[in-house]
Amino acid sequence: MTETIQERTEGRLSYHDSVEEMMPRIREDGMSNVFDRWVQQEKIRCKFCLQGLTCQQCSQGPCRISEKGGQDKGVCGIGPDAMAMRKLLLQNIMGAGTYSHHAYEAFRTLRATGEGKTPFKVTDVNKLKWMCEKLGLNTNQDTNQMAIQLADLLNTQMSIGADEPNLMVEAFAPKKRKQVWKDLHIYPAGVNHEEQNSVASCLTNVDGDHVSLALKAMRLGLATIYNAQIGLEMTQDILFGTPKPHEVNVDLGIMDPDYVNIVFNGHQPWPGVATIQKAKMPEIQARAKAAGAKGLRVVGSIETGQELVQRFGMDEVFVGMMGNWLTIEPLLATGTVDVLAMDENCSPPAIDMYAEQYQISLVSVSTIIGVPGLQHKIPYHPEQVDTMVDQLIEIAIENFKKRKGKVTPKVPQITQKAMAGFSTEAVLEALGNKLDPLVDVIAAGKIKGVVALVSCSTIRNGPQDWNTINLAKELIKRDILVVAGGCGNHALEVAGLCNMDAVKQAGAGLSEICGALKIPPVLSFGTCTDTGRISMLVTALADHLDVDVPQLPIAVTAPEWMEQKATIDGIFAVAYGAYTHLSPTPFVTGAPQLVQLLTQDVEGLTGGKVALGDDPVEVANNIEAHIVSKRKGLGLSS
Amino acid sequence: MTETIQERTEGRLSYHDSVEEMMPRIREDGMSNVFDRWVQQEKIRCKFCLQGLTCQQCSQGPCRISEKGGQDKGVCGIGPDAMAMRKLLLQNIMGAGTYSHHAYEAFRTLRATGEGKTPFKVTDVNKLKWMCEKLGLNTNQDTNQMAIQLADLLNTQMSIGADEPNLMVEAFAPKKRKQVWKDLHIYPAGVNHEEQNSVASCLTNVDGDHVSLALKAMRLGLATIYNAQIGLEMTQDILFGTPKPHEVNVDLGIMDPDYVNIVFNGHQPWPGVATIQKAKMPEIQARAKAAGAKGLRVVGSIETGQELVQRFGMDEVFVGMMGNWLTIEPLLATGTVDVLAMDENCSPPAIDMYAEQYQISLVSVSTIIGVPGLQHKIPYHPEQVDTMVDQLIEIAIENFKKRKGKVTPKVPQITQKAMAGFSTEAVLEALGNKLDPLVDVIAAGKIKGVVALVSCSTIRNGPQDWNTINLAKELIKRDILVVAGGCGNHALEVAGLCNMDAVKQAGAGLSEICGALKIPPVLSFGTCTDTGRISMLVTALADHLDVDVPQLPIAVTAPEWMEQKATIDGIFAVAYGAYTHLSPTPFVTGAPQLVQLLTQDVEGLTGGKVALGDDPVEVANNIEAHIVSKRKGLGLSS
Repeated sequence: MTETIQERTEGRLSYHDSVEEMMPRIREDGMSNVFDRWVQQEKIRCKFCLQGLTCQQCSQGPCRISEKGGQDKGVCGIGPDAMAMRKLLLQNIMGAGTYSHHAYEAFRTLRATGEGKTPFKVTDVNKLKWMCEKLGLNTNQDTNQMAIQLADLLNTQMSIGADEPNLMVEAFAPKKRKQVWKDLHIYPAGVNHEEQNSVASCLTNVDGDHVSLALKAMRLGLATIYNAQIGLEMTQDILFGTPKPHEVNVDLGIMDPDYVNIVFNGHQPWPGVATIQKAKMPEIQARAKAAGAKGLRVVGSIETGQELVQRFGMDEVFVGMMGNWLTIEPLLATGTVDVLAMDENCSPPAIDMYAEQYQISLVSVSTIIGVPGLQHKIPYHPEQVDTMVDQLIEIAIENFKKRKGKVTPKVPQITQKAMAGFSTEAVLEALGNKLDPLVDVIAAGKIKGVVALVSCSTIRNGPQDWNTINLAKELIKRDILVVAGGCGNHALEVAGLCNMDAVKQAGAGLSEICGALKIPPVLSFGTCTDTGRISMLVTALADHLDVDVPQLPIAVTAPEWMEQKATIDGIFAVAYGAYTHLSPTPFVTGAPQLVQLLTQDVEGLTGGKVALGDDPVEVANNIEAHIVSKRKGLGLSS
Repeated sequence: MTETIQERTEGRLSYHDSVEEMMPRIREDGMSNVFDRWVQQEKIRCKFCLQGLTCQQCSQGPCRISEKGGQDKGVCGIGPDAMAMRKLLLQNIMGAGTYSHHAYEAFRTLRATGEGKTPFKVTDVNKLKWMCEKLGLNTNQDTNQMAIQLADLLNTQMSIGADEPNLMVEAFAPKKRKQVWKDLHIYPAGVNHEEQNSVASCLTNVDGDHVSLALKAMRLGLATIYNAQIGLEMTQDILFGTPKPHEVNVDLGIMDPDYVNIVFNGHQPWPGVATIQKAKMPEIQARAKAAGAKGLRVVGSIETGQELVQRFGMDEVFVGMMGNWLTIEPLLATGTVDVLAMDENCSPPAIDMYAEQYQISLVSVSTIIGVPGLQHKIPYHPEQVDTMVDQLIEIAIENFKKRKGKVTPKVPQITQKAMAGFSTEAVLEALGNKLDPLVDVIAAGKIKGVVALVSCSTIRNGPQDWNTINLAKELIKRDILVVAGGCGNHALEVAGLCNMDAVKQAGAGLSEICGALKIPPVLSFGTCTDTGRISMLVTALADHLDVDVPQLPIAVTAPEWMEQKATIDGIFAVAYGAYTHLSPTPFVTGAPQLVQLLTQDVEGLTGGKVALGDDPVEVANNIEAHIVSKRKGLGLSS
């Protein structure tokens, strides 16, 4: 590979033409933007930080490790491996904490809904009953009472200590994994407990051992997926319906400047769903029209958008999903956004100048969000969501009046179709409600294996989504089915890999199956919280075959991980027993024993490991080789 | 101040002769040590990190801010103020998480004790009743049942969300503060909830606003002190007795190589207390003697040691407290330690070579501890503490057999007396169970004011404890009573400022009062968790006078803060309304708006603020000026 990324990608900033099209305006208008900030930062990167060899925790620091310079330890005495792993664990805690925050909001929303205090209702009663059965709750009672009991149980389970049974792990973990985790002392308590135990371990002079820290990270990863993610995703299914595949619109072309546009950005669906519901009322549309608009629309942005498109079809109010986080600044520059309602990440911190230039009202709809120049803070409370929606609509209509005439819109006329809304249930339904057909096509080698692609989007290794999309293409070409979540999933949707046209890019075997089942070669499973949902499919497969996860012809990839939720998903995958590809390489390369542990030795413990590599073709080759070896292990043809 | 620290301190590494005496052996034996690592690190400090202008959170980093170089924001768009404050908030979360971990262990110990499953009992029944009354629990029931109910309530309160009443804040916060905190939206939920909300806010692209982040830190600080610290300290009082002043032995001279020595290091007292109890059994002493020792002793190290000396007198088993964390490596080098049982920080990570050289068994007695070379992991469970103690004694006696003959001991013959065990109750008792005498002597100017000194120990600004001890001397000279907690308190105890001999170093007014009440001019209030206990005294004073905290002639100082528990204590103090001196200067100097907020603007919000300064005389002058201005505000003479 002598060709540089620049040459291979022809100097592009993004895989997506829509984003490329917006860049000249962004630069002409003098807007600070992520692509240009990247170029500036490239000039002053710290080589110690890149290798994980810095610490700024205590007043005796900042410290750096430089064996050559005689600094083989920090002032406290910490060595390179623990220094790098502690930082990685801290990232994991941030990710776990954010998922837990999402879960907290989900569980209290379910409770308030059961009490009749929200505009939501229990939509999927069967799933509610199924969850209650799995967790030992009485299903022979009023639906709302059941919802309240489930909400309380899920919430309580988040905080249990190590001495109490973790009901979610017991209900949802692969049968053969539980003993492995117990033997390694990584069978987790509740996620809140693990967060606290981990964050206390990161304190100066508490845990200075990289193996101990890595085991804590895996424990935390397991708690995060079982206690927070699966709980919250099942709760959202109960409230808004279990996802089923359907066609949705994506990319910036969904924006129409003549409408009042409320964009929901972040990860949590609550006010977005309530606004879609409310905006269907004729009086709301009439108010928008009275302000000179064609009407009022809801737009999904990044993970919040994905949560919405997973469960809601396109209609006169809800127009689709714009893309992933690197598309936010370009979206704002279209001059079509009236309200950016932010609930979680990614709500980038330098958008105040966009708000000013393009007349946008920045609103936080969560306690965790803070952005300089925020005009309105309307933190989410389940019982106040209806009022919140009224405020958002009011702010949006007032903003439209100012925006119209002041801002010249510029919208790339590019809209893509994607099939969103896959889930374990949807896959099973496509298979006639049994797993055998999937096992058969895997056994026959038509589908060689399955890769879960759960990722963010980063420009570290090339243009936005370039690695993600090219890796997915390479995988499906090799008859490997891709199941996608997170901002990486939005990348694939926008790139057209989640619709039936993409079948022709798949290998012969996968093409045949996709055609027969009428599914694309990349299944959009939702957001990064759907890591849990994807694991449910894999767990079902493992339990069905009575094998353990590491025996399956599967792998996980995060080809463009960017933030800390991705790191905890990745660590979970290793504990779960999966070959886990991460790109970019985490900041651990200065820590030789840690690298050895994560990329090799851990395989002897959990059966999973971290794989590295930034070139899509090489990565696909390695994943294919791994899958082939696992096929052999199961006695299947390669 | 043209004189350098080096000149002023005559090239010393530590204020304490005992530590100085150990250094030649440490160096001759080729031991890596904190003092020499400091010198190495000084050569390669990162100037960006020192100013708070670096971020290593996400894969688009590491980023640095350099306005001059054109890098005014990180790749994501975060600016200098939020970048520095986010890192500070993360430190705060680590501190809060560690205190919460301690509280979790305390509450489950109280519960298990109520159930009769530990070797402990309810020692202070009155305090148990008093706590139950304050929290609305029925006191007309069996003591153990009451203990169980209190434990459950305290544990549950840690996890409450923002919608539920925070009973600990209601019961223990100053009357006039609560509305201030509500108006600022920093009236906290349970500490676990605030930790999670804060850590989620630190995620990339979530909270990029330094004011929002700073308010979250203060909210977290309040939750930490009321939900975790006060709860756990009161629980420890209930279990082991409320501290009362008594004389104890400190410094390295307490070590005797001819005994089997079990050192308890960290912060949590559980196995230490149980070992003191058990080691009094003649058969245990006989076993030690059979191994060739004079007997078996328990030694307190740093905060765990302080927890023990606060409540237990010196006897044939318990010999006192060795000093603070910078004395750990010197302690190990004495060649007298058989077991170092570690439960929390500071358990420094590079002590494996000491264990080898001086024949020490390293044992973790907590889930959070990890140290390379750890030989035994015996994580604390209240119900297993008796078995834990058996294991520790067994390991220690076996170690003694190996140590004796192999290691030449070297013990500095320096032991100091200190009066430990002050508490609000003890102060009130000294005053005849009313606050008026204290108010009277303050009004008369005999005591000008009160300073809470809660600190770690660091060599950033000079030798170990040099700043702490000199500042305390300057304060008492000015008739300012010092109330001390944390590793800074151990510094003062070892330096002889916590005994009656020190009265002669105080000003005339303070001397007179100390003589009359038979108290030293520095009151040892315990550990850094006793920040909560100290606040109870100040709260009592404020409520008694019907004034708000910022009106009182008080201040807080952390003259040698080192780790992250200190940062959350400091942030609490600012929210509590106190003038809060911090040295060294936190890593925020590259963030001008943040510096302005913390050192000036916040005073308009909470009445508290951060004060900086690394010179003891200057700092004392500034604190005195602050106290004098507050005296004037109350109409008192200066």
